[in-house]
Amino acid sequence: MTTDALLEPIRAQALERLQRLVAVPSVAADGRGIEEAAELVAAILREDGFSVERHPTAGAPVVYGERLVPGAPTLLLYHHYDVQPEDPLEAWHSPPFELTERDGALYGRGAADDKGELVSRLAALQWYRQRHGQPPFSVKVLVEGEEEIGSPNLAAYVHENAERLAADVALWEFGAVDGEGRPMTYCGMKGILTVELALTTANRDLHSGYGVVVDDAAYRLAAAVASLRDADGTVAIEGFRDGIVPPSVAELALVDALPDEAEALREAFGLRGFLGGVEGAAWRRRLFFEPTVNVNGFHAGYGGEGAKTVLPAEALAKLDVRLVPDQDPWAVLDRLREHLDRHGFDDVEVRVLQHAERAARSDVNHPYVRAALAALRDVYGVEPTLHPNSPGSGPIHPFVVGLGLPVVGLGCGYPGSAIHAPNEHLRLVDFERGTAAVMRFLELLVDTDG
Amino acid sequence: MTTDALLEPIRAQALERLQRLVAVPSVAADGRGIEEAAELVAAILREDGFSVERHPTAGAPVVYGERLVPGAPTLLLYHHYDVQPEDPLEAWHSPPFELTERDGALYGRGAADDKGELVSRLAALQWYRQRHGQPPFSVKVLVEGEEEIGSPNLAAYVHENAERLAADVALWEFGAVDGEGRPMTYCGMKGILTVELALTTANRDLHSGYGVVVDDAAYRLAAAVASLRDADGTVAIEGFRDGIVPPSVAELALVDALPDEAEALREAFGLRGFLGGVEGAAWRRRLFFEPTVNVNGFHAGYGGEGAKTVLPAEALAKLDVRLVPDQDPWAVLDRLREHLDRHGFDDVEVRVLQHAERAARSDVNHPYVRAALAALRDVYGVEPTLHPNSPGSGPIHPFVVGLGLPVVGLGCGYPGSAIHAPNEHLRLVDFERGTAAVMRFLELLVDTDG
Repeated sequence: MTTDALLEPIRAQALERLQRLVAVPSVAADGRGIEEAAELVAAILREDGFSVERHPTAGAPVVYGERLVPGAPTLLLYHHYDVQPEDPLEAWHSPPFELTERDGALYGRGAADDKGELVSRLAALQWYRQRHGQPPFSVKVLVEGEEEIGSPNLAAYVHENAERLAADVALWEFGAVDGEGRPMTYCGMKGILTVELALTTANRDLHSGYGVVVDDAAYRLAAAVASLRDADGTVAIEGFRDGIVPPSVAELALVDALPDEAEALREAFGLRGFLGGVEGAAWRRRLFFEPTVNVNGFHAGYGGEGAKTVLPAEALAKLDVRLVPDQDPWAVLDRLREHLDRHGFDDVEVRVLQHAERAARSDVNHPYVRAALAALRDVYGVEPTLHPNSPGSGPIHPFVVGLGLPVVGLGCGYPGSAIHAPNEHLRLVDFERGTAAVMRFLELLVDTDG
Repeated sequence: MTTDALLEPIRAQALERLQRLVAVPSVAADGRGIEEAAELVAAILREDGFSVERHPTAGAPVVYGERLVPGAPTLLLYHHYDVQPEDPLEAWHSPPFELTERDGALYGRGAADDKGELVSRLAALQWYRQRHGQPPFSVKVLVEGEEEIGSPNLAAYVHENAERLAADVALWEFGAVDGEGRPMTYCGMKGILTVELALTTANRDLHSGYGVVVDDAAYRLAAAVASLRDADGTVAIEGFRDGIVPPSVAELALVDALPDEAEALREAFGLRGFLGGVEGAAWRRRLFFEPTVNVNGFHAGYGGEGAKTVLPAEALAKLDVRLVPDQDPWAVLDRLREHLDRHGFDDVEVRVLQHAERAARSDVNHPYVRAALAALRDVYGVEPTLHPNSPGSGPIHPFVVGLGLPVVGLGCGYPGSAIHAPNEHLRLVDFERGTAAVMRFLELLVDTDG
């Protein structure tokens, strides 16, 4: 069976839906447009014959739709209707909430992450029905509205609705081709804990002539941050690695066999080199399987032109801690607190910024994962790559561990799509082929003994 | 001889002059009003019978005036007509460049530092003439226009004009009462080197998922900054202490005998304590005689609300290094570069922000210093304190070492005068007594065998 080109009416409807979705500024960070986007997603799902419910959570509602075929295998789709903030606005070449076609791509906030992926999945389902009639599988769609702020209510939602969400395989929110145009998929994600460290040493800034006897919040917080890891990224927090499950032989072999993208990354970003001078398979093993602490921002004291001899009274650092299976983010938070206390930084306050996410990897050898690889091979005509997990983080743990599902990602992304950045876009060629890959996956799903 | 109260016409003229001077926004940092202020100072000096010259430098001109009495002892006055920037403007309760009387004080940028001190000195000289006729001493006045940006051209100016500036004693630009209202004077200042450390690790920010293999500019610069000193303020740069001349027995004794202001400072600024837990005389010895590195500001990456999982490509830290006699700032700069290179931070760029100043202390037992103490005792009726040096920094080295002068400070300040900050002001009571102290010093100068 072939999946040559998306049928024109389906394609036109998908892009019209994407236009309507992008027009709603559903920014989870400030709550704008969240209600409206949930309603729109529900309406679109109803158009496609889903039985739709809107499930309230402690935060944004989950839009849940299902089209059940009793006794048939069940596919669970995970998506989100929220997007990242659009700032800096001046860096956009067209309005962020107005889907704009330019040079073979559709620009707009959410065009790729994740509204574009959602309409692509629905288009693939329609295409399947056009070609094969009523599908012999059930489809459940879970579209949440808080992914971009760490999915604070998703784990509880999945836990409470475990029976309702029961499935045989989950298709994760995105997929992509790599920098060389090779299609890839993945079966897991890293976890994450985001915190800010705040330090106040005085009730106002002092003249820095006092710095020889008085604390300097900027220096002290720099010292606290520096104490957390070494230059190679190895975390110095005692107990940080508790619970880590090393990658399996199969997972290691997959990563060892991946193409080497280090040099391309080094050139694209003008890097001097990599932490600890790692390269080749060691570079990839570290990227996929190691946790670390990143400093996302650090702000204290004077930042203008020239000199200002001030002793800052306040300093703030924002960190993310990337986690691997089966580190417990809340235990890591406790270890961080203990580390700071033990190193004389008991006055450094630790505030959790977003709900933490646990890492998870599903079975790389699951038949449905093999089906996803086969679909990519069929559509792209080249051997796809399989990542045991993304080096990024996402709320995958409730699905992999909570629901016990194999999870695999297919979709329309590419490394330059600028998700989370100005000029986010979806290339039409990726949309075409990504949709075809999902369509092909559906066909293979029917033949696969999960 | 008494110095009860400044004569009314002299007082009125001084405050009118201060009003005119404050009205000129002579901000050295951006060059506004510098020319105008130099002209105004020259005009004022001429009104008082000085022979005035305007000496160009590589930067702002020096206004130089002299009133010579052949064969008589010579008093050199050091002042500056430039001021700190007025921002943040919204924090001022009256316009910064409009001298405004409120609650017994005169508010405005430069009202205290240093325009108020200049008009006070001239008032004291007039007062002396009113009372005693033509003074039996020469007066030389050097008013520069770059003090607030580190006096980059002053050392060369003093060196090139050493004969012209020859004197027996220099009166430094300011003096003050302490928090308890006790008058104080000082014979030296610390030195200073201001730099910024700049680090660029990539041509743009990366997704922090790469942080396990890619440098994080915020983390790396924090580690670089943390490596420079320890929590107690002890500098870890190899060779940093080269050339340090320990304080003399007399200087130590003076500092040991000073009143304990640590607790008052701790309370006023809400501090937890002091570096290394020092207190008492040890606290003061450290404050006056130890060098350190301060972090005035640190900025990198995200600083907004919530989390942003970015790997910053750039980071910037601003530092000041407080120096003691006889550390060479340029040698310290070299040691800093070597330290960074040795610790793996060869990619951290070091940029000097302002011209460095060397520390200097003049003889605490010089007869003219004793005369200054006697003047304060006579006017304030309490025992004044003598600081071998200020814990702050200033361009005193060319005078103490270059011209070989005893240097002493008298003036109208108090700890709350908010110099360099919004709502800078001069209390009228301090102006009155500070001027009287200078007047009394002039009387004693005549009787002193320098």
